[in-house]
Amino acid sequence: MNKEMFKLGSQRSIIRELFELSKELKNKYGVDKVYDFSIGNPSVAPASDVDKTLVDIITNESSVYTHGYTSSQGDNEAREAIAKDLNKRYGTDYTLYNVYMTCGAASSLSIVFKALTESSEDEIFAIAPYFTEYRVFVNNSGAKFRIVPADTNTFSINFKELENMINPNTKAIIINSPNNPTGVIYKRNDLEKLVEFLLNKEKEYNHPIYIVADEPYREIAYDGIEVPHIPSIYHNTLICYSYSKSLSLPGDRIGYVLVPNNVDDSKNVFLACLGAGRSLGYICAPSLYQHMISRCASSLSNIKEYQDNRNIIYNELEKIGYECVHPDGAFYLFVKALEDDSYQFMKKALEYNLVLVPSDDFGIKGYVRIAYCVSKDTILNSLQAFKELYNYYSNK
Amino acid sequence: MNKEMFKLGSQRSIIRELFELSKELKNKYGVDKVYDFSIGNPSVAPASDVDKTLVDIITNESSVYTHGYTSSQGDNEAREAIAKDLNKRYGTDYTLYNVYMTCGAASSLSIVFKALTESSEDEIFAIAPYFTEYRVFVNNSGAKFRIVPADTNTFSINFKELENMINPNTKAIIINSPNNPTGVIYKRNDLEKLVEFLLNKEKEYNHPIYIVADEPYREIAYDGIEVPHIPSIYHNTLICYSYSKSLSLPGDRIGYVLVPNNVDDSKNVFLACLGAGRSLGYICAPSLYQHMISRCASSLSNIKEYQDNRNIIYNELEKIGYECVHPDGAFYLFVKALEDDSYQFMKKALEYNLVLVPSDDFGIKGYVRIAYCVSKDTILNSLQAFKELYNYYSNK
Repeated sequence: MNKEMFKLGSQRSIIRELFELSKELKNKYGVDKVYDFSIGNPSVAPASDVDKTLVDIITNESSVYTHGYTSSQGDNEAREAIAKDLNKRYGTDYTLYNVYMTCGAASSLSIVFKALTESSEDEIFAIAPYFTEYRVFVNNSGAKFRIVPADTNTFSINFKELENMINPNTKAIIINSPNNPTGVIYKRNDLEKLVEFLLNKEKEYNHPIYIVADEPYREIAYDGIEVPHIPSIYHNTLICYSYSKSLSLPGDRIGYVLVPNNVDDSKNVFLACLGAGRSLGYICAPSLYQHMISRCASSLSNIKEYQDNRNIIYNELEKIGYECVHPDGAFYLFVKALEDDSYQFMKKALEYNLVLVPSDDFGIKGYVRIAYCVSKDTILNSLQAFKELYNYYSNK
Repeated sequence: MNKEMFKLGSQRSIIRELFELSKELKNKYGVDKVYDFSIGNPSVAPASDVDKTLVDIITNESSVYTHGYTSSQGDNEAREAIAKDLNKRYGTDYTLYNVYMTCGAASSLSIVFKALTESSEDEIFAIAPYFTEYRVFVNNSGAKFRIVPADTNTFSINFKELENMINPNTKAIIINSPNNPTGVIYKRNDLEKLVEFLLNKEKEYNHPIYIVADEPYREIAYDGIEVPHIPSIYHNTLICYSYSKSLSLPGDRIGYVLVPNNVDDSKNVFLACLGAGRSLGYICAPSLYQHMISRCASSLSNIKEYQDNRNIIYNELEKIGYECVHPDGAFYLFVKALEDDSYQFMKKALEYNLVLVPSDDFGIKGYVRIAYCVSKDTILNSLQAFKELYNYYSNK
């Protein structure tokens, strides 16, 4: 068998590993005794019209409509609903022809990386800290995965490092804002600075450099903070979107790739995405969920609950003495580990039934990620354990 | 962008191409005036308990259960239900640990090919006529795709050609029975002959040669004809399954890979499949559908309708004078084209609003495939057009 695939299957992502471990711990100690902050499995229910719409489609539409194949690029009504929703929010003029329905963000990213990569010399950049699986999906495309080291002051774009690293093989830069694992939202002037830089480099190298905007957390932004629509400020932007978080449907696998008209050679890039999806075995996005999206594209889960969680966990951990990155969006809190080796810190936290994800696989050492998309009770009940963990290190 | 992906996206499979064309024709001439035999989109409704179960889960279970991530390998209850169902039918002793939930047959195949392929010298064989997309999925894995020419007498395994072609680089042979596009079911003694041959070759080459059994049509067999369970006669068999046809859920993308214990190094092969799924961007199979399967693994759509369709279209086309391969299963009829060039024949048929798929991409020239998973009325209404098409060629 393929050794690399065996390795990927046997050494799973640390997030998935901890997700499985925490299931075991819950069986052993009881569900309410384990504080599982490992995975971004939304705790908030889907927007109220989502389940209703699913039932309505199953009950009242023909079975070939509900369960039949759609076109590979997706059902036209769903694509059009998405284009209209984006146009309303961003003043754009997308049509269904810009939208390719996919099985969530992971498939969107895999498809886009595969569609863009021409040679094994191509490089795709991620800015640390970054979502661990980018490395896996970029490797699958055949391109080189390169990490722009973190700017630990702002946790935004590290321009100095980016300027050092960029070269004629740079094919794309992944921008993930609101960010997983930090919850940081990249500010408009940072993005504008990036755009100016990339435009110059495109001219210098005489080929496109794409921004791949991974935006599953786009709608989860607090205190009215702006999440800029990147295609409106940079021409070569492809958006990878998922409804996993905004509609709380992570297991159902529904999302899209957006290829705006101002992407160079836009129509052909769209077709290359379609070809990449075909090549990876994606026949069509789940049809029932596509039809639901055609009616619920503008819906949103009650993200207010995440904001409440954010306020509690950020304030309380800071109060205890933890050093936290202030999150403006998503549902992650990035916290400085209390010893240099975040893997050892994760292990120590497990003794207090706290399931935290060490930061090494996010491309930076010495932090842990807390996914606070859990019930408020879990957070409140966990605070004592966080205190004890802190005291353990203080008294060491 | 990637030129190969662009090609795959812009020159779609002939089936998908005709599926799209037939939508256009229906808009132009009216739904009942176009006889669309292009795609295997089941006309029969899902088994009666499927929709009921979906609604029950959405209505009565917690949203995190219904819509949350499952483990990558799938929900344990669904995996166990599948193992139990297989054990009951085939006298096997599978457990949940043999089952990996996937997004249908295309993803199952992509995953298995990627998991098995070690080097670009590896070869994966398909027996013509074969499902067109095998080529795409094998190419994605990096292995060479090799076609065993058809035995046009039996449309079963062409042993003479297989013996000529097999070599130390042969990694796997795809067996698709009931077959798409012919509807032929490979008989037990043919499979036993294949097994004896492969066992000798495994010994000679000193490495496993896998059978990849692509079995979406397993349950659609007529007149009580046996579809042998290949893992019971050959150790190195991986099954790629989809509920698309047996439960009439093609757009919903749910299926599995089965890795039996008698596969050499079974546990590691399973892990390599898991790694391949991860690498291709499959996070988990759609969760709602996994939960439905945990209750409906033994259900079956009303396949009697397909048998009625088979009887009508086979008998009537033979009566007109067409030469047809007799189908014992699936819902395809393979018919000799009335001119050598099946592509030209397909075009001529379109003039009579008959949408037939030319056989070239199935690895054999001079035939067309008729997907008779349509309403009985479509078949009855199409007969006049088939007569006129036949007369056109007779009078030529």
